[in-house]
Amino acid sequence: MTPAPAIVLVRPQLGVNIGAAARAMLNFGLTRMRLVAPRDGWPNEEARAMASRADAVLDAAELYPETDAAIGDLHRVFAASARGRDMLKPVMTPRRAAAEARQAIAAGQRVGFLFGPERAGLDNADMVRADAVVAIPANPDFASVNLAQAVLLIAYEWFLAGDERPGFEPVYGRSRPASKAELDHFLRHFEEELDQSGHFDTVADKRPAMIQNLRNMWQRADLTEQDLRSLHGIIRALSGNRQGHR
Amino acid sequence: MTPAPAIVLVRPQLGVNIGAAARAMLNFGLTRMRLVAPRDGWPNEEARAMASRADAVLDAAELYPETDAAIGDLHRVFAASARGRDMLKPVMTPRRAAAEARQAIAAGQRVGFLFGPERAGLDNADMVRADAVVAIPANPDFASVNLAQAVLLIAYEWFLAGDERPGFEPVYGRSRPASKAELDHFLRHFEEELDQSGHFDTVADKRPAMIQNLRNMWQRADLTEQDLRSLHGIIRALSGNRQGHR
Repeated sequence: MTPAPAIVLVRPQLGVNIGAAARAMLNFGLTRMRLVAPRDGWPNEEARAMASRADAVLDAAELYPETDAAIGDLHRVFAASARGRDMLKPVMTPRRAAAEARQAIAAGQRVGFLFGPERAGLDNADMVRADAVVAIPANPDFASVNLAQAVLLIAYEWFLAGDERPGFEPVYGRSRPASKAELDHFLRHFEEELDQSGHFDTVADKRPAMIQNLRNMWQRADLTEQDLRSLHGIIRALSGNRQGHR
Repeated sequence: MTPAPAIVLVRPQLGVNIGAAARAMLNFGLTRMRLVAPRDGWPNEEARAMASRADAVLDAAELYPETDAAIGDLHRVFAASARGRDMLKPVMTPRRAAAEARQAIAAGQRVGFLFGPERAGLDNADMVRADAVVAIPANPDFASVNLAQAVLLIAYEWFLAGDERPGFEPVYGRSRPASKAELDHFLRHFEEELDQSGHFDTVADKRPAMIQNLRNMWQRADLTEQDLRSLHGIIRALSGNRQGHR
């Protein structure tokens, strides 16, 4: 298993945010929480209530009196902050930071993400200990992201950076995409019934263009082999020609 | 301004989640909330308290009795669901869905994202109205993402899909990166003081390799012009040779 980054909450104020952060972490496979001097002490019942089934993350959380102790064993530290530009430090998105964290861990380093107190965020003394600032891109008119939501976004990017499944999955249930021969067989059936129904009788000159549009319409529908069997039956039913094709 | 997708909350149960969803939306520039039959009626004081400064999103929220009415004017609808694979429908990540939503809107279509009730998610009757399922990639052992957090992740991906700023920004404050000539000038000063201090006297044969390592170390530090001026002064101070160089 790839070792995962530590999530270090520095002087968090609200138990509910600690609990919600634990849930967000576990949603994306992170389990190593570190707490620096939580305002309301530790353990915290509100954190536990909010964490719901992620309480194992809280049970395993490590408590530290100050930031130095919480990050001492780490090699690479990212500080989550909206005001990174005050610091003489590179500023990057969660996506970029997640990729760098994966690289550092693959190289055998221990990595952590620092988050500050709800009201004011990380102070300068904590920021200066970090290698880089992670700034969440957001609406400049309403950029303040809640503590647990900031943890969520970084955990999400961490997870995605290691997720090699495709971003898109066509789903056909128990069936499979129709082959082009199956589709063509259906289209011929469909057009034959349309011809017999007299649909094209008064517009014979438009028939080729209409057929082309209908073929494109069916093509777009991304039909399965099961869909085609259903459609053959439907056309037979509509045309009243139940002895007909296939 | 690019028109943005509607966020449609179907039968949401908890006011706090509606409020948190409003915040999440505004964080990433989405303002069009639609509510289908919220369990506790509307308006909702808990939603307002949680929305904090995003209450304008709640004020503008549109209320509908059922899903059909809420999506009737839309052209492309994405259903957020963890159980998309039951449906004969393409399943995609929030990232892919955000890119498709941007494309649809650029082509003049109206787009919406559907979210179901907290406990059970969207039911089949709602799912079947959607063009595609959006599934948030997550830890398979703890994949249940809170309603407002699901809204957050999709809003975040929507925002990023239109954000052309670089993911990485080296920050030098009021200074600028040192030029290679400035760096070389500093390195010569540094090495000259080391030579004069006798640092290499007993290891003269190792001097070239040591110099190379030190040059690489300083190179990695990505120094600014201001850093170099500070370092020149520091070396003069350490060497006690204040009348010295430059």
